Amino acid sequence: MQPSPFLGELVGTMVLILLGNGVVANVVLKQTKGESAGWIVITAGWGFAVMIGIFTANAFGSAAAHLNPAVTIAFAFLRQDYSLLASYLPAQLIGAFLGAVLVWLQYLPHWKATEDQGSKLACFATGPAIRSSGSNFVSEFIATIILIVGVVAIGYAGTSDPDRGGIPSGVAPYLVGMLVWSIGLSLGGTTGYAINPVRDLGPRIAHAILPIPDKGSSDWSYGWIPVAGPVLGAIAGGLILRFFYF
Amino acid sequence: MQPSPFLGELVGTMVLILLGNGVVANVVLKQTKGESAGWIVITAGWGFAVMIGIFTANAFGSAAAHLNPAVTIAFAFLRQDYSLLASYLPAQLIGAFLGAVLVWLQYLPHWKATEDQGSKLACFATGPAIRSSGSNFVSEFIATIILIVGVVAIGYAGTSDPDRGGIPSGVAPYLVGMLVWSIGLSLGGTTGYAINPVRDLGPRIAHAILPIPDKGSSDWSYGWIPVAGPVLGAIAGGLILRFFYF
Amino acid sequence: MQPSPFLGELVGTMVLILLGNGVVANVVLKQTKGESAGWIVITAGWGFAVMIGIFTANAFGSAAAHLNPAVTIAFAFLRQDYSLLASYLPAQLIGAFLGAVLVWLQYLPHWKATEDQGSKLACFATGPAIRSSGSNFVSEFIATIILIVGVVAIGYAGTSDPDRGGIPSGVAPYLVGMLVWSIGLSLGGTTGYAINPVRDLGPRIAHAILPIPDKGSSDWSYGWIPVAGPVLGAIAGGLILRFFYF
Amino acid sequence: MQPSPFLGELVGTMVLILLGNGVVANVVLKQTKGESAGWIVITAGWGFAVMIGIFTANAFGSAAAHLNPAVTIAFAFLRQDYSLLASYLPAQLIGAFLGAVLVWLQYLPHWKATEDQGSKLACFATGPAIRSSGSNFVSEFIATIILIVGVVAIGYAGTSDPDRGGIPSGVAPYLVGMLVWSIGLSLGGTTGYAINPVRDLGPRIAHAILPIPDKGSSDWSYGWIPVAGPVLGAIAGGLILRFFYF
Repeated sequence: MQPSPFLGELVGTMVLILLGNGVVANVVLKQTKGESAGWIVITAGWGFAVMIGIFTANAFGSAAAHLNPAVTIAFAFLRQDYSLLASYLPAQLIGAFLGAVLVWLQYLPHWKATEDQGSKLACFATGPAIRSSGSNFVSEFIATIILIVGVVAIGYAGTSDPDRGGIPSGVAPYLVGMLVWSIGLSLGGTTGYAINPVRDLGPRIAHAILPIPDKGSSDWSYGWIPVAGPVLGAIAGGLILRFFYF
Repeated sequence: MQPSPFLGELVGTMVLILLGNGVVANVVLKQTKGESAGWIVITAGWGFAVMIGIFTANAFGSAAAHLNPAVTIAFAFLRQDYSLLASYLPAQLIGAFLGAVLVWLQYLPHWKATEDQGSKLACFATGPAIRSSGSNFVSEFIATIILIVGVVAIGYAGTSDPDRGGIPSGVAPYLVGMLVWSIGLSLGGTTGYAINPVRDLGPRIAHAILPIPDKGSSDWSYGWIPVAGPVLGAIAGGLILRFFYF
Repeated sequence: MQPSPFLGELVGTMVLILLGNGVVANVVLKQTKGESAGWIVITAGWGFAVMIGIFTANAFGSAAAHLNPAVTIAFAFLRQDYSLLASYLPAQLIGAFLGAVLVWLQYLPHWKATEDQGSKLACFATGPAIRSSGSNFVSEFIATIILIVGVVAIGYAGTSDPDRGGIPSGVAPYLVGMLVWSIGLSLGGTTGYAINPVRDLGPRIAHAILPIPDKGSSDWSYGWIPVAGPVLGAIAGGLILRFFYF
Repeated sequence: MQPSPFLGELVGTMVLILLGNGVVANVVLKQTKGESAGWIVITAGWGFAVMIGIFTANAFGSAAAHLNPAVTIAFAFLRQDYSLLASYLPAQLIGAFLGAVLVWLQYLPHWKATEDQGSKLACFATGPAIRSSGSNFVSEFIATIILIVGVVAIGYAGTSDPDRGGIPSGVAPYLVGMLVWSIGLSLGGTTGYAINPVRDLGPRIAHAILPIPDKGSSDWSYGWIPVAGPVLGAIAGGLILRFFYF
């Protein structure tokens, strides 16, 4: 089997979700080594998850390494070329689902040890700190705009044109990871920063399907927000960037 | 609309304040995911906020990416060229104000959930740990000198002259972010390290204007310190650097 | 004495274990400055330990700087060349043992101050959060696959071929350290992430031999898991990478 | 006044101690914003302090940026050229003393707010977790060897010879900062890791001289350990490196 963009997006997103939801499981499940280790651990874990996901996606054939339909949509919008969506989006969703299955497997003995159903769901899907559809949507919308603008701004600095900056291009995955760490620290306090439709949808499907002891609801009524917020945030980010002639 | 230094300073400062004050909101407001997550979260959040703000300012047209009148004033003083102040300072103040409005929007349901008026103000403006005008001024003054000297020292290492160092220039925003993380950890314990006049003034104006439930005083009596301390610290930093013939 | 790969692997692994198990001692032993400092400290400590271990191994003659039989086995499998195993593996095991002896020496007054036998063992060998051979094995197996894929992916980005990325090669040790920080945060909550046979075996031997007051069992019944899991994970990682024609 | 190695060592060490002891003050003094923020804050603060200190020393004329007699002695020993000691060591000691005075000034209102005399001393000098001359000396000795070997190993990777690595040389200060963060996390739990004679001696003199309310003893009986341990560790590190023909 040859590396390909499809494979790269799938494997990279799988690794992203394994490491990203893995750190949530470590912090919120019971009797883990990282139990109750707090927000610095969760946000650092997600930041590094993005970095490793990007390196992995590169190695498996996706030079773009979006790992996120919001990023794919924003770049498609910026370039007015939607041809990548048909292959990238399914790869990302499948990868996110498989990553969630691996988290379930990695933390297998801890599902039974954890009573609280909300904690178990939190290892898969995001949920609001204070439930309020409008505000929760706005939170995801704003955080995703920052993600899109940040990714483009880091990429802009990373071009080889020496007048623009000159990040060694292999360092960019690290900086994008730090961007996501930043978004988590600063903007994630309200909805747990999905900022990526498949990061929420894939694992939520896994939660619904997998045999988790006393798992409770998959909270589908909230599920549209971490999809719609990031998708519209991506389009808004693209609009903003186009308005300024990038 | 074309990218320009004015636009870059405005948008970059807006992102700086959204992410910087956002992390404070996450930690001090009630019922957030990062509630009471501590000083490491706040200082890391501000450090990354600076990095993302710089990348964003670069992308929107400000190659200098000051985001801070103290930095603009110090460089104007070093170069004896004050022409940039008239456009940079208003852009920075407007950006800071807008960033604070976005924080208010991002954390909308949490203002009502938080009783303590001081906590709500802390998401906008800085305040002293122990109120003492002289000492608080000195704290901001010293911390800003370190900021100015640190920024110049990192920039010095970043020149392309290989005998001086040779940071890939796109990596400098990361290092400046770490400098601000450092200042927060080490010097921020007394006044919350404004080290930037608009970082305090812009959001304090937003606090005074915005409809925040039971918001209490905007504490204008303290407001001159995080403006005067950084401005005089910037001039002192400039004087020190000029004295040694930079 | 000349630098050599044998010497580099030995000294590098010794430094890795001194710093890695050192941070565990700092957090779990009594009356230390880092007592109960939590998972962020332990995982950061191990991440940096890997980085310093790699730089040290490079300086002492091992350009490859595996420090881990799982890495050596995976690369041997990928290249179908097993000639390095006979020298690398003993060097790594001796280094890990010596590193554990240094931890014992560094924290000498704290062994008596600490009553809990499990805490003392934790400064040497890993142990499961919930004891369950099958799940514990799977945890080490999955985490090691991520380590191998991550190391190869970072190395892939680090090649000098500019189309592939272009990490300055000296920055790769930092990124591999961050990879291990990531694995600790996200996947280490179940078994304490040995992901390296000698990281567990060498110090466990040291625990059995060293005169530690009231030390209790070295828990040899668990000892096969942090050896077998990483070894089989390394082979699985190699198989996955070969399947995709690296 | 012209930049010079003397000036660079003095100003760089002053900044190192201001930021390093500043983070201790923030964590251990009462009523600060970082009160009781823990070991991750202290060790991160010191790591960044080293990085900023190096950049500052470079900018003020010390390309070597030792900031530490242990480093100066180790390099003098490696090169068998002791000519730098006469100018570097006084500069470092004066800088460390001045840095401690700045910490005192920065946290001025908090000395009176803090009752515990040990906490006040901790903002200046190091002290043992468990007092035991032999073990405390060994701790400083081992930690300093790791510092010396680590600095040399990072420098080795940083040479421009592409076969050896190739860290952009301006990135090395960041990596040395991470090395010190690592040493703090892993080896600092016993004595608070002076690993630098002037880092302890300069501020201890400041503690003895400065008017601090109810300050208590400067604990001179311990003061020889954080001087002798690092000096002998530096010579041992130099011996080890010479033995392997660097």
